[in-house]
Amino acid sequence: MAYELHYWPMIQGRGEFVRLALEQAGAAYIDVARRPHEEGGGIAAMMDRLEDEPIRPPFAPPFLKDGDLVIGQTAAILLYLGPRIGLVGATDADRIWTHQIQLTVADMVAEAHDTHHPVGVGLYYEDQKPEALRRARDFRENRIPKFLAWFERVLARNPAGPDHLVGAAVSYADTSLFQLVEGLRYAFPTATARALEATPRLAAHGERIGCLPRIAAYRASDRRRPFSEEGIFRRYPELDAD
Amino acid sequence: MAYELHYWPMIQGRGEFVRLALEQAGAAYIDVARRPHEEGGGIAAMMDRLEDEPIRPPFAPPFLKDGDLVIGQTAAILLYLGPRIGLVGATDADRIWTHQIQLTVADMVAEAHDTHHPVGVGLYYEDQKPEALRRARDFRENRIPKFLAWFERVLARNPAGPDHLVGAAVSYADTSLFQLVEGLRYAFPTATARALEATPRLAAHGERIGCLPRIAAYRASDRRRPFSEEGIFRRYPELDAD
Repeated sequence: MAYELHYWPMIQGRGEFVRLALEQAGAAYIDVARRPHEEGGGIAAMMDRLEDEPIRPPFAPPFLKDGDLVIGQTAAILLYLGPRIGLVGATDADRIWTHQIQLTVADMVAEAHDTHHPVGVGLYYEDQKPEALRRARDFRENRIPKFLAWFERVLARNPAGPDHLVGAAVSYADTSLFQLVEGLRYAFPTATARALEATPRLAAHGERIGCLPRIAAYRASDRRRPFSEEGIFRRYPELDAD
Repeated sequence: MAYELHYWPMIQGRGEFVRLALEQAGAAYIDVARRPHEEGGGIAAMMDRLEDEPIRPPFAPPFLKDGDLVIGQTAAILLYLGPRIGLVGATDADRIWTHQIQLTVADMVAEAHDTHHPVGVGLYYEDQKPEALRRARDFRENRIPKFLAWFERVLARNPAGPDHLVGAAVSYADTSLFQLVEGLRYAFPTATARALEATPRLAAHGERIGCLPRIAAYRASDRRRPFSEEGIFRRYPELDAD
């Protein structure tokens, strides 16, 4: 039975980390909210499902349904899917390390989001722009170099070589790191290009993952939504200026 | 062999979620950085270990050592410890649900932190106070009620009753939720008291977990550091004012 992914239909957002893993695995899935209304799609139906879930309600999209099981939180979804779709190693040590990397990706995603929403998610960007300018500067100058240096170190220290984060095979941490770097390149092209000069293994990693046949096919399809100023990674040039 | 926990010695911080789980389980552990310098304790030794870890370096404290295995990220540490110290259910469904709750606790912890550091972690609170006032207001008015209502719903919908988050036994999600609510009560006493009036099961849950014999003993010991304005949850009265 196909997995059901429930997420905002028009953006990449946090759901994209799940989509990329499912695509790389070649797993059967339905992106439910993107379906027509009469087939149970759309945002209203998704929000009804979120509220109606009787026993274990997710806090927010994305959430995954696998039969009767409902799982929220991007990192938890990937933790669940990893062994089932062949995107994590077989040992406990590999699995917990892959998850640790995913959680660090998630931390940086949250910080990237907060560059344009440093005061509150319920306010428009335009209503928190002075704060956003300050936060984005700190993010560019301190956080991007610090996080990217850590990912570089992880690649450099992988005994199996820098092609993958964990061992010698693609894991969900690889597809998530690809998406993170893509998002940073979109939102902060200048700052990210500068940081990637100091992290050559990371830059090469992104190129490689993006060209995996299934990832390349997905990126060329209309299932891949473009980055936009409705998502997590937003290109506001003033936030990438020196 | 005792677990080794590595975390900032003077604060509760994120390490406290691990400490509480280990204490509730009665597990043998060493809080390494709190040891004397000559026994390998102290902050400098911890930071050396973080850098030196040859293969799989954690991003930041806390990290746990179990023999040769090193695990960073609070939620990943608890994911690893849960089944080993008897603080998570036996089924896959229970485990992923417990982790989902933990990740939502972690999201709120990050937001609580950002009320006093909305611009950057490298700056002093005093240098980002106008931004902090705005962010804290949004946190009090929107985020505290939203998160606490979700925890209330989780307790209310637990088929085994509202004494625990998952099933009929204490899990690491329970000890983490206890710590989160304690932190909120410390940092935002007025706003939190108001929100807890609307979430009676959550209020009772905190009382109950705090009085579990091992948790009570830990809280009465000098192993439990007090809340302070060096930690995640800080009492700045202006951030709790209407």
